[in-house]
Amino acid sequence: MGKDTTKIALLKTGTRFLKEKGYNHTGIQEILQATGVPKGSFYYYFKSKEDFGLEIIENDAREHNQFLDKYLKDETISPLTRLQRYFEAKYEEFASLQCREGCLLGNLGQELADQNERFRLRLESIFAEWRDRYIDCLQQAQAIGELSPDLDVHILADFCLNSWEGALQQMKVTKSPAPLQTFMSVMFDVVLKR
Amino acid sequence: MGKDTTKIALLKTGTRFLKEKGYNHTGIQEILQATGVPKGSFYYYFKSKEDFGLEIIENDAREHNQFLDKYLKDETISPLTRLQRYFEAKYEEFASLQCREGCLLGNLGQELADQNERFRLRLESIFAEWRDRYIDCLQQAQAIGELSPDLDVHILADFCLNSWEGALQQMKVTKSPAPLQTFMSVMFDVVLKR
Repeated sequence: MGKDTTKIALLKTGTRFLKEKGYNHTGIQEILQATGVPKGSFYYYFKSKEDFGLEIIENDAREHNQFLDKYLKDETISPLTRLQRYFEAKYEEFASLQCREGCLLGNLGQELADQNERFRLRLESIFAEWRDRYIDCLQQAQAIGELSPDLDVHILADFCLNSWEGALQQMKVTKSPAPLQTFMSVMFDVVLKR
Repeated sequence: MGKDTTKIALLKTGTRFLKEKGYNHTGIQEILQATGVPKGSFYYYFKSKEDFGLEIIENDAREHNQFLDKYLKDETISPLTRLQRYFEAKYEEFASLQCREGCLLGNLGQELADQNERFRLRLESIFAEWRDRYIDCLQQAQAIGELSPDLDVHILADFCLNSWEGALQQMKVTKSPAPLQTFMSVMFDVVLKR
């Protein structure tokens, strides 16, 4: 494998292991075995398991920000429709994964927030980036009269992100997409009054 | 230590480790060291680490059900006030823990739902017991006209539990009780229209 290919393969395998097993339970040795990469190569690309984990987080955040922007910046439809389509698309994605894995960054937050301050701070700022995108979309909804001006979009954005993360946790536990459907129906019909 | 004392000490220490480090990352050896109990005694009480973990879950569920009942069956106040007081009491508890740990059973669900079917099934049914208590309380609120009869209490109870779990995850990540306050304000002011 070429240098870039090796690094990409390690990150891809690492992402899969972190989704399946979490951070603490994943060993570098099994990543090396699964990719067929020697230990020396791993440490050429990553200083430590921690740096490896942080780079996996960066990759996931970058991809997810692009996915969010694809939906939330689609000006051909109304702001709340964009938000709804985004959650519907994520719903399809998780349902196709048999309700496994959930949100990698939510999982890592739950696992590591009390243990590793570098992970916690980075995850906190990534979630803030997601929230900012929700806020922007909700502000646009208020501007065109799609959302009541009485509602605080900062609080709504927080609530929306947190509740979605909780719905994903319960999706994993129940192995059913019902918690995601419940989230969408209450969020759009009752909270945002779509 | 007497037999019961030994078992109680093991479960208490195990609960603390599971809250701090999760299941996979906790070793029996460190539980033994922290309690000063020999390995043989551990296996006298528990067939395996898995059985130990499941008994910790049972204990936590039993305690939490009692806590829920204390609040939700207090007929001296209205049903929605009971629900609100319950969340306020949990808020105080988590704030006093410096926003660490979160919900043990939610954490274990996130960590183990894809890995261990015994844990997953047990956790699923415990969460269903919590939901049933919310449903009962919300039905009582509808019966006395405190909650709109148009709302589906089963969906609301699911949403309430899932959103609370997500708020706890974000409380851990942000090390702030704000997500719990956001949960309470949107849930009671907007969703349940308290």
